Amino acid sequence: MRVDFAEIAEVLQQILRRRGFRPEDAVLSARLFAEASRDGVPSHGLNRFSAYVAAVDRGEIVPTAVPERVGTAGALERWDGRHGPGNLNAWRSMGRAIELAGQYGIGCVALARTNHWMRGGAYGWRAAEAGFIGICWTNTIGNLPPWGSVQPAVGNNPMIIAVPRKAGHIVLDFAMSQYSYGRLESYRRAGGKLPFPGGYDTRGELTTDPAEIERTQRPLPIGMWKGSGLALMLDLTASILSGGDSTNRISRRPTEHDVSQLFIAARPQFGGEAGESWAESLVEETIAALRGATPVAPETEVRYPGERVLESRRRAEAEGVEVDGEVWSLIASMR
Amino acid sequence: MRVDFAEIAEVLQQILRRRGFRPEDAVLSARLFAEASRDGVPSHGLNRFSAYVAAVDRGEIVPTAVPERVGTAGALERWDGRHGPGNLNAWRSMGRAIELAGQYGIGCVALARTNHWMRGGAYGWRAAEAGFIGICWTNTIGNLPPWGSVQPAVGNNPMIIAVPRKAGHIVLDFAMSQYSYGRLESYRRAGGKLPFPGGYDTRGELTTDPAEIERTQRPLPIGMWKGSGLALMLDLTASILSGGDSTNRISRRPTEHDVSQLFIAARPQFGGEAGESWAESLVEETIAALRGATPVAPETEVRYPGERVLESRRRAEAEGVEVDGEVWSLIASMR
Repeated sequence: MRVDFAEIAEVLQQILRRRGFRPEDAVLSARLFAEASRDGVPSHGLNRFSAYVAAVDRGEIVPTAVPERVGTAGALERWDGRHGPGNLNAWRSMGRAIELAGQYGIGCVALARTNHWMRGGAYGWRAAEAGFIGICWTNTIGNLPPWGSVQPAVGNNPMIIAVPRKAGHIVLDFAMSQYSYGRLESYRRAGGKLPFPGGYDTRGELTTDPAEIERTQRPLPIGMWKGSGLALMLDLTASILSGGDSTNRISRRPTEHDVSQLFIAARPQFGGEAGESWAESLVEETIAALRGATPVAPETEVRYPGERVLESRRRAEAEGVEVDGEVWSLIASMR
Repeated sequence: MRVDFAEIAEVLQQILRRRGFRPEDAVLSARLFAEASRDGVPSHGLNRFSAYVAAVDRGEIVPTAVPERVGTAGALERWDGRHGPGNLNAWRSMGRAIELAGQYGIGCVALARTNHWMRGGAYGWRAAEAGFIGICWTNTIGNLPPWGSVQPAVGNNPMIIAVPRKAGHIVLDFAMSQYSYGRLESYRRAGGKLPFPGGYDTRGELTTDPAEIERTQRPLPIGMWKGSGLALMLDLTASILSGGDSTNRISRRPTEHDVSQLFIAARPQFGGEAGESWAESLVEETIAALRGATPVAPETEVRYPGERVLESRRRAEAEGVEVDGEVWSLIASMR
């Protein structure tokens, strides 16, 4: 079903206010959830809203907590998330990184003791909207076996890189496994196979069967040993710079909280107007060359990261946001 | 064959001095080449030395050129590489990023108009040696088809992330294709198949046959659509921030030069001595957990990025650097 964006945002913010969120925080958090669904990322939008509220109810998310700056080295600041709502903490942290980048050219906020940021892409879009390059990543609970192991000792740590562009920002939002557990579930429910091997089966062979991967808990890291290594580095850098917990420490608790994140913003144009127009040409040429590259098959389109988001957004603006009926009933019942 | 490190460095620096390198630059460049081979990366060490000298002879590498700062925003600086030797330019740029990070907590040098940096890992090791987190990437000529295309419209842009560690730095050095062309060639020469699919064959199917991938020029990006997207973002960020050429522009020339690079350093301990010892424990725990994770098979070892480098280095220090006989004869003849 499709529901009007404003209606979704209104319902969510009412629920959050009832849970103790300050009015402006309830509005922002509700908007971020609604935007994720609007942009075609329901797994980190409405589909995850009830888990977010449950974490508030368990006391893992403190609705009124606001991050506190605990250290500064100039362009690099260390903040304590104080167990606040992950999406609000991340939003504020990228905002602060942008301020620092405005001052120093590059700015970095390292955030400890925060919660799941929901849709990481939101913070990339935020930087790009402000005209900045945005890069951020988070660690997670251990949920991905490092290369050579069957034990989920590294996190599926998402990473976002965003570049501003007038005709539509370029935003890459990716995690370290080839397919997320959410995606595996979707394929299994649809009774289908994965288009490419996505993990290991019970015999230890690569498989396209999503149910087998759910059984073995051995999803494939992107690029195998390479994604496994990248997951480790994102975890170490985020936790060391923030003074927060690593995946290893997070995984000692039964649920995922107290995660560590890093937000970097950089000012693209410090060449003035001429620099701005130079950068615009460079980006447009690159996107044109990418989209114009000879496709694998005549019907194949070569896309840039963020292109599908804009398509989903435009359709949602015209026809309402696509929402799973069961998810929407559950949310409506929480009011 | 194995050759003493000092002998290699001496031979290389003599050749470079003859080509017009200043004595101290010849020594540094020779050392970086010798270290790459010593560390088990001959493809970007001695095996590439003659191509480096050929680029000097063609005038693409200007041996005496030194990078010039063309803009600063505080912690972010823009430098013009002035067609200097790529390894020396990159070494100096990471050095400058470290200085900026010492001052601002985080520092970034964006470098335009430079040349192939040879072994990117060297600049990560450099940051880690100085006690800093180091992150850097470069763009390249188009040599990898973006996802959905058969045309090599994106670069195989290497990325490096380094974390300092007393017992051996953790340094991830990876490029965007699952296997490099150098690796494909090694497998083909050895008459073997790749351990995992590494690209497409002439029928458009994934294959483990290295010769087929060399024929189609369709190596597989890591994580397929994910690595393809990451390659694009690394290119855009490096070229926009440096004011340098993108992969698209580099690819209009017959050979790869005038590439763009980004060097970021961050100061891990701004919590003083207590922070330092905290970070050390966190890193050691993480590495211990990784190496102790249940292996796929009893004989499998789970490694951290950089572990093999140290093993290769230790063996080379004891027994000499492993060098390809033909490569060494060729180099000796250049003296």
